[in-house]
Amino acid sequence: MAADLALYGYWRSSAAYRVRIALNLKGLAYETRPVHLLRDGGEQHAPAYRALSPLELIPCLIDGEQTVTQSVAIMEYLEETRPLPALLPSDAAGRARVRALALTLACDVHPLGNLRVLQYLESQLGADETARGKWSRHWMGVGFNALETMLAGSTATGRFCHGDTPGLADACLVPQFYNALRWKLPLDAYPTIRRIYEACQGLDAFQQAAPEAQPDAPAATPT
Amino acid sequence: MAADLALYGYWRSSAAYRVRIALNLKGLAYETRPVHLLRDGGEQHAPAYRALSPLELIPCLIDGEQTVTQSVAIMEYLEETRPLPALLPSDAAGRARVRALALTLACDVHPLGNLRVLQYLESQLGADETARGKWSRHWMGVGFNALETMLAGSTATGRFCHGDTPGLADACLVPQFYNALRWKLPLDAYPTIRRIYEACQGLDAFQQAAPEAQPDAPAATPT
Repeated sequence: MAADLALYGYWRSSAAYRVRIALNLKGLAYETRPVHLLRDGGEQHAPAYRALSPLELIPCLIDGEQTVTQSVAIMEYLEETRPLPALLPSDAAGRARVRALALTLACDVHPLGNLRVLQYLESQLGADETARGKWSRHWMGVGFNALETMLAGSTATGRFCHGDTPGLADACLVPQFYNALRWKLPLDAYPTIRRIYEACQGLDAFQQAAPEAQPDAPAATPT
Repeated sequence: MAADLALYGYWRSSAAYRVRIALNLKGLAYETRPVHLLRDGGEQHAPAYRALSPLELIPCLIDGEQTVTQSVAIMEYLEETRPLPALLPSDAAGRARVRALALTLACDVHPLGNLRVLQYLESQLGADETARGKWSRHWMGVGFNALETMLAGSTATGRFCHGDTPGLADACLVPQFYNALRWKLPLDAYPTIRRIYEACQGLDAFQQAAPEAQPDAPAATPT
């Protein structure tokens, strides 16, 4: 079954990065189908890709005849169709906690700093690079403040976001931390987030999902 | 068990509105705990509420000893702890489709038009009411274009977003449509979305979740 999996993504997209982590944690082989977000006005807007994902956003998972969009929906789908190793705990309270951590990033942080939003801020509201950087850091900071409190304040937090097994929340945390480094968000206030990020980075599943490890990453990473 | 449920929300918040619909569809009684988003600088920022939800966003569900944040995580939690009537279909492909529809709204439309974002656009980027309205309509339009395609182009769509039973995607669609009406988004291009909205509005579960039906709604609705 795994041989039928293909992931449309882009090396530096956080949302695609999440799904790559989830696929790797589950030990699933998949074909990488790059969608270049900047070339030719954005390949995600081309009719061929729009037919898969009408929202013209990546990632998109192909599983045989099945097409799944939305990174969190894709991870839930993988969890339901390939349950082990699990990305969610088995108890409802734990599952709710992990989903809340994941959605804090997937709903309330990442979409605000997405490429299409930064393009709008520039073209429609005249926000220059400084203003766009401030915007990105603002929403990451608000989200990380909350996430640090949620993680540091709970006995459910272990080596990873929930206990000692990496899962769905970690798959969202690492790409956002990567973004925070890229945008130079000051990180001193987030020791728990950083500790979990570093624990994740020690695992093959995360290393192999890293943007720079993707076949479509440029040889020398642009800033 | 239902008597222990309490929902922190605000009458006009789309995210709280979603959860009210889910609670009503499942026939669960709950206590309403209003959090006034505009009074005293926003009650969601007060220490008492921040202790429940560090992100300082509503809604937040209390279920006995359990606190759950993030509207989609809350609906998934309700689905796991009170499975019937179901808000998600039983097959993995259907569940993935419903989650993708829901998350298109919950991740890629609603967070961009949220109060805190509009406040930032005004205070930090000098966006006036016209620019903020344009911003809101832009992201709703992009999302609705995708949603209309996803719904109109699939045989899985029925009287509601997925088949003939209302569920998690409908609970996200109706509050966003309410927002679209409020922001005067032109809706002619979305006949399927409108048809489903109207089907939902015929049901008690949706009517009783409406902003104007909430105890904290003002007697005369401000614009």
